[in-house]
Amino acid sequence: MIRSGLIRELSAKAALRPEEFGQKAHTINRLHGADLPVPEGFALSVTAVREIADTGIREDWDLSPLIAPGRLKAIRSSPVSRSWGGPETLVNIGMNRQVLADLSRKLGKGVAAEAFCHFVQEYAVSIRRQDAETFRAIARDSAKIGIQPEQLVASCLEAYRALVGEEFPEDPAEQLRNGLKSMIAAWDGTSARILRSARGAPADAGLGLIVQDMVPGYVSARQGSVQFLSPLSGEDGVFGRFLPERLGSAGRSSTSENLDAVDDQLASAFDASSPVIGNMLSEYGLIARRTFHDEMRLDFLLDGETAWILDAVPAERSTRAKLAIAVGLVDDGLVSRQDALFSVDPLDLNDVMLAQLDPRGQPDVVATGVAASPGAATGQIVFSAMAAQAMKSREQECVLVRVETSPEDVRGMYSASAILTEKGGMTSHAAVVARGLGVPCVTGATAVHVDARTRTVTIPDGRVLREGDVMTVDGTGGRVVAGAPGLVEPVLDGAFGVFMSWADEARTLGVRANSDTALEASLAREIGVDGIGLVRTEHMVIEPGRLTLMRELILAQTPTDRQVALERLLPMQRADFIEIFRIMQGLPVCIRLLDPPLHEFLPTSRGAIERLAEAMALPVSRVSERIDDLAEFNPMLGLRGVRLGMTVPEVYDMQARAIFEAAVAVRRKDGTVLAPEIMVPLVSTTMEVEIVKSRVNAVAAAVRAESDCDFGYALGVMVETPRAAFRAGKISEVAEFLSFGTNDLTQMVFGLSRDDAGRFMREYVQQGIYEEDPFQTLDPEGVGEMLLLAAERGRSARPALVLGLCGEHGGDPKSIAFCHRAGFDYVSCSPYRAPVARLAAAQEALRDAMRRRDASSEGSGGE
Amino acid sequence: MIRSGLIRELSAKAALRPEEFGQKAHTINRLHGADLPVPEGFALSVTAVREIADTGIREDWDLSPLIAPGRLKAIRSSPVSRSWGGPETLVNIGMNRQVLADLSRKLGKGVAAEAFCHFVQEYAVSIRRQDAETFRAIARDSAKIGIQPEQLVASCLEAYRALVGEEFPEDPAEQLRNGLKSMIAAWDGTSARILRSARGAPADAGLGLIVQDMVPGYVSARQGSVQFLSPLSGEDGVFGRFLPERLGSAGRSSTSENLDAVDDQLASAFDASSPVIGNMLSEYGLIARRTFHDEMRLDFLLDGETAWILDAVPAERSTRAKLAIAVGLVDDGLVSRQDALFSVDPLDLNDVMLAQLDPRGQPDVVATGVAASPGAATGQIVFSAMAAQAMKSREQECVLVRVETSPEDVRGMYSASAILTEKGGMTSHAAVVARGLGVPCVTGATAVHVDARTRTVTIPDGRVLREGDVMTVDGTGGRVVAGAPGLVEPVLDGAFGVFMSWADEARTLGVRANSDTALEASLAREIGVDGIGLVRTEHMVIEPGRLTLMRELILAQTPTDRQVALERLLPMQRADFIEIFRIMQGLPVCIRLLDPPLHEFLPTSRGAIERLAEAMALPVSRVSERIDDLAEFNPMLGLRGVRLGMTVPEVYDMQARAIFEAAVAVRRKDGTVLAPEIMVPLVSTTMEVEIVKSRVNAVAAAVRAESDCDFGYALGVMVETPRAAFRAGKISEVAEFLSFGTNDLTQMVFGLSRDDAGRFMREYVQQGIYEEDPFQTLDPEGVGEMLLLAAERGRSARPALVLGLCGEHGGDPKSIAFCHRAGFDYVSCSPYRAPVARLAAAQEALRDAMRRRDASSEGSGGE
Repeated sequence: MIRSGLIRELSAKAALRPEEFGQKAHTINRLHGADLPVPEGFALSVTAVREIADTGIREDWDLSPLIAPGRLKAIRSSPVSRSWGGPETLVNIGMNRQVLADLSRKLGKGVAAEAFCHFVQEYAVSIRRQDAETFRAIARDSAKIGIQPEQLVASCLEAYRALVGEEFPEDPAEQLRNGLKSMIAAWDGTSARILRSARGAPADAGLGLIVQDMVPGYVSARQGSVQFLSPLSGEDGVFGRFLPERLGSAGRSSTSENLDAVDDQLASAFDASSPVIGNMLSEYGLIARRTFHDEMRLDFLLDGETAWILDAVPAERSTRAKLAIAVGLVDDGLVSRQDALFSVDPLDLNDVMLAQLDPRGQPDVVATGVAASPGAATGQIVFSAMAAQAMKSREQECVLVRVETSPEDVRGMYSASAILTEKGGMTSHAAVVARGLGVPCVTGATAVHVDARTRTVTIPDGRVLREGDVMTVDGTGGRVVAGAPGLVEPVLDGAFGVFMSWADEARTLGVRANSDTALEASLAREIGVDGIGLVRTEHMVIEPGRLTLMRELILAQTPTDRQVALERLLPMQRADFIEIFRIMQGLPVCIRLLDPPLHEFLPTSRGAIERLAEAMALPVSRVSERIDDLAEFNPMLGLRGVRLGMTVPEVYDMQARAIFEAAVAVRRKDGTVLAPEIMVPLVSTTMEVEIVKSRVNAVAAAVRAESDCDFGYALGVMVETPRAAFRAGKISEVAEFLSFGTNDLTQMVFGLSRDDAGRFMREYVQQGIYEEDPFQTLDPEGVGEMLLLAAERGRSARPALVLGLCGEHGGDPKSIAFCHRAGFDYVSCSPYRAPVARLAAAQEALRDAMRRRDASSEGSGGE
Repeated sequence: MIRSGLIRELSAKAALRPEEFGQKAHTINRLHGADLPVPEGFALSVTAVREIADTGIREDWDLSPLIAPGRLKAIRSSPVSRSWGGPETLVNIGMNRQVLADLSRKLGKGVAAEAFCHFVQEYAVSIRRQDAETFRAIARDSAKIGIQPEQLVASCLEAYRALVGEEFPEDPAEQLRNGLKSMIAAWDGTSARILRSARGAPADAGLGLIVQDMVPGYVSARQGSVQFLSPLSGEDGVFGRFLPERLGSAGRSSTSENLDAVDDQLASAFDASSPVIGNMLSEYGLIARRTFHDEMRLDFLLDGETAWILDAVPAERSTRAKLAIAVGLVDDGLVSRQDALFSVDPLDLNDVMLAQLDPRGQPDVVATGVAASPGAATGQIVFSAMAAQAMKSREQECVLVRVETSPEDVRGMYSASAILTEKGGMTSHAAVVARGLGVPCVTGATAVHVDARTRTVTIPDGRVLREGDVMTVDGTGGRVVAGAPGLVEPVLDGAFGVFMSWADEARTLGVRANSDTALEASLAREIGVDGIGLVRTEHMVIEPGRLTLMRELILAQTPTDRQVALERLLPMQRADFIEIFRIMQGLPVCIRLLDPPLHEFLPTSRGAIERLAEAMALPVSRVSERIDDLAEFNPMLGLRGVRLGMTVPEVYDMQARAIFEAAVAVRRKDGTVLAPEIMVPLVSTTMEVEIVKSRVNAVAAAVRAESDCDFGYALGVMVETPRAAFRAGKISEVAEFLSFGTNDLTQMVFGLSRDDAGRFMREYVQQGIYEEDPFQTLDPEGVGEMLLLAAERGRSARPALVLGLCGEHGGDPKSIAFCHRAGFDYVSCSPYRAPVARLAAAQEALRDAMRRRDASSEGSGGE
């Protein structure tokens, strides 16, 4: 018909390209080619559909090849991408009194009449756009109980006539024409366009259509969908849905899309139905896997012992299953390692690292907040650090709920399974500590009201949760859930290891972890990293027991007092570094000197101030005054980082000594030769680096002399201020490495505090003012350009300069790709994000290689 | 003697260049050339002095031309720059028994013996480095009462012999040699080197020496110094010091350097001495003025009616006097306008703009703080805004003293003569408002303790000042002074106007003022500017009476409530703009849309919150909650600027309407056609500008339609974030001008809050980590580079782009020079800084022209 190429048989030898005929037509054609039992039929191309939409079906078009008299047809949608959705299938096209007579002979009059009447109703409703209720009301009126099949048919036709105002059309060609037009109209309807646009479809999204034979005996057939591995674990098995009841007159089940409730009794259901079915479908599954080079889910119809395959789509799969599938396909030589690496979205790997809310559940979400630290955990509510520790000692899981947290709560935060705070953002104390500990955390849940005195949490709907009530914190989704919904636990199985080893082979960009403690360093090693890119020494200092010392240091009245506190801190820090160095076994470890504003270490509550005053034998008023003195208007932009190193240089001296003495100790004990990396934070001038370097050099010389042991080390700069980026050339004459602290850099480039951005970030991203949240994905135009400029200046000054990134962008795939392209040496992120980073780095390296291959083949082609 | 050119007669025809012979030798030589009565003598060059320092005075050097037997000589120092200081003059070189005999004949034995003995003592002490006390003790012992001249001489020589261990040398050549060596040794001494290094001298600072005849009859001569205009006002008169007593045997007075205490009775002192002296010196003064092309102060000796001129230095002068001198010298054709413009340091012009502490006073400084707003004022202490208003209504001057200020205090700040706060920095509320009002202000005087309850200020020395006590605030020097020290009031006289008009002719860079109110706009016009570069609309909103409305707007529950508040604010803002537009008479006015975080407008005290809750008929808890909600961690980096325009767009709509309606009203009333400039603050993306622009365009279209009056306007961007600078190209496709807000930009480039920098800024500048305080002088390497980058990108996108700077750097000469070189169109600063900016811009334009002239002459020379 029409113009050549606009319509093709589904059994055509030449492939039906998805962009021409839609994805479903493409799939069915391939299933056909693999000799699977697929009903015959034709595919209308996207162009044909567009012509019909624009100019209608011309009278001179000959649709007869699509219609064989006496054979029923289905019209199925075949959009270019399945994910866009599409109009529902129209079945039984071609139904008329001649077919009715035929069916009556084969199936009996009653069943045939029911099928006929159902089609008439569907035709009236779906194609002639009549109201279904009204049709049913009229047909019900005329169809009394005990009605004869002939009367049923007559009353249906009467209802059609009454409603539509004309006779029901008996001509199959007319039915087909109207069926096609109605599906195309549905595709072009407003609500369909909005819906698919939300799923990422372009404005001119193309639709193909399929006109396909109905399966013989469809009325008695049973429909199902099946895949041969677990969508959750990826392990072998028979999973899917299988409707035990027959399809019946409607000719189709409600839906088979929803696999959330997996019937893993499917194998026995098949057995009960017919012993050969299971084997046959399993064989078809293997064929489909070989055909599509992927695990597939098959949509099938069972007519007695005959199975018809209607469609095949990629099998449902969790991230864990994805990894198992990828490894299996590579093992069987069906896909390359490269394709396997691209088959997993790096961000999906988060799911296997941490427990998550079970996506199939219906959690009782009582409030939302900032998704401050990912993962999910359930426990009894407690309101104080002390209560959390008590729960821990009884080996009970608890959720620590606070208005906000302070250093005094850290011990309790260690003991809690999850943390919830009413106030605070992504960089509040609770958020930073929780991410470091890998504890799920939601901050800034401003709609809940926490009252620690009465030990209650009032939630927006008015309910009051009390100490001991069970709560779940979803730190991935920023949700607070009452009770204990199902969680999916993390599993790092063999497939994970194999898959990640391929990623490591492919990538050229280093991936390090941010690890502040021995615990986190062990975790990083276990998960797999190339080293530690950031040890935040302040997180070692706020550990229980050390905080008071730190406070004494800060409030010291005289250099002597300060020296006393430092001398007691030194062995503690040294012990920490020894542990970390031993765990990392010679892998690089980059330690950042003390960074945060001093007042962050100081107590805020009256009680804590009094205790500190007592410990220091000072009047409370004196301590309070000093705390007030240290308060800052914009702590982010205050006396912190290297500015501490300039004003209280003894602290950095102590830290450098602890690092060097630890390196010596580890060498003596394990024989491990290591060269610690020392990083200076918040630099804005070259001279700051020079001053720190000369002092650190002096400490190194002293430790070398005292220990009679030589060791190397590197001194570098954390580039967090725009000025440090601008001055990267000069700074790199002094610094051996630059590590971009893109959290702070983003704050300064945008003039935007991450903690305060929450209030309008969503709106900004929705309006497209920010393409993405710049704290999630590196802003390529502002921050990114600054990184490139700094990298170029730094490398010009020192070709061997090592370049890293240690903001949270280090765990974001797009940002990692940016770093790869910029020629950075490594990114550093939370240990939990390291797999994401490794895969993202691998993918970008592969893309890079492809781009270079393309460029060189183009280049050679042009010659 | 020695090698040719190393010694020259003071009367030499060829000039003695200061870099060869020192400034004093140069001056004396020119005085000689002008036929003034100068004692004869010789100048030793810097090279000669260096040779002596290195290798000593060689025995074969013939010093006889410097020594005439029987003539006494003085050795004077002549450093290359006078400002470096130098060894004191040695007099009466050549004194011996032959001279004694001669003097005895002329002056009598007693006087002669006294002069002789004085020289012997000086020789022992200054040249042979003996202890003066010991010498005097020995000489006193031997010199009894009623002693004869001969005995006096003998006992002196005896004391010399006893102390030095050899005979007093009678040979004038030996005395001269030793005198020269001792002065050179003093010049090379450690303390002298430290002293002059502090005065900016280089390590190899050169010294010349002068060997000069003593004035005949010097023993009876009287010494003085005189200049012929007032060092304070620059008006004509006879000012200086004149010692009525004779010089006596010492041959010199203590010092004549200190002119702080001006003896303006000098004219009558001369008259009393001799009627011709005044006229003669005045004549000499005119000659010196013509000779040096500057007003000079003459050092003279009067011997009866003979005046000898010993030296001439530039006359002492205040800034006001500088302007008068400059204008006078240009009028008399003695200097060019260009040289006149360079004769005043732009920063000096601050002195004539505001009252200042009298530099001659000894103020009782009780504390120091941040010099937050320049000028000085005295008044009675008050502790509340209300008390300040009460004082104002009684027309009494008061100083408002607070721990810190908030918007509720603004009315009181208007009424105060000066403001002092215990807390806060350069951008605290008090500082910003005070600078806007031109009220002297010291903030962050943390050593004082303000107790508003007891109405006392406790100062560091323990004194307690009470309400009503008199205090002076020196906002220029950051000093708090008890009582009422003398102030120098500002005078903008005719010379100021003439001088500034020359600056305006010379400069090419525009100078605008930051003026938020009609009052400040008037002031700006009076002082003289090219327009207004920054109207901070928030300062209009925090005016008394409007604050409550603003608070209602912020706390509005519904769009309707918000609209009601906006509709009441609209006519107020419009009225403000009308006034400003009328005052500026068509000169450009650039209005910044609302910038600060909303919570800055909200009350903090319990009482104020209660009053607001009452006004809004809301529960106090509701108001408190909302205020808490709006609190931010880093307000500098929060929900402010254009982010308000994105989230509450109605506010900018209202402001745009007020601006346009004001433009229409002024055009109707005065016929003035004006095109307001509307500036969007805190931009970080192009789309923010696009969104604001489209809304402002819509408002403009509406106002044009409603008023049936056309008007133009320009929409531009305040570049305050590094990202806006990076994106200047794209942004300039939308914006017609860019104005760099370098206060915030500096904060973000350095990652440094200005308010929090105070704690370590001094240390940073002292250590040279920052070459200068980057909030005072534009950081050329970081912020400056960013400005250049943005300017280049902006101009590439839009060649006609107007570029300005409106941070406080707009009043800093080095920063202004930077803007000139970068090709900016204008700078904008406080009206009080406008004269500084105009002169700095003129000087840079002139330097620029000179550089280009030099370059082109070099270029043509090379061809």
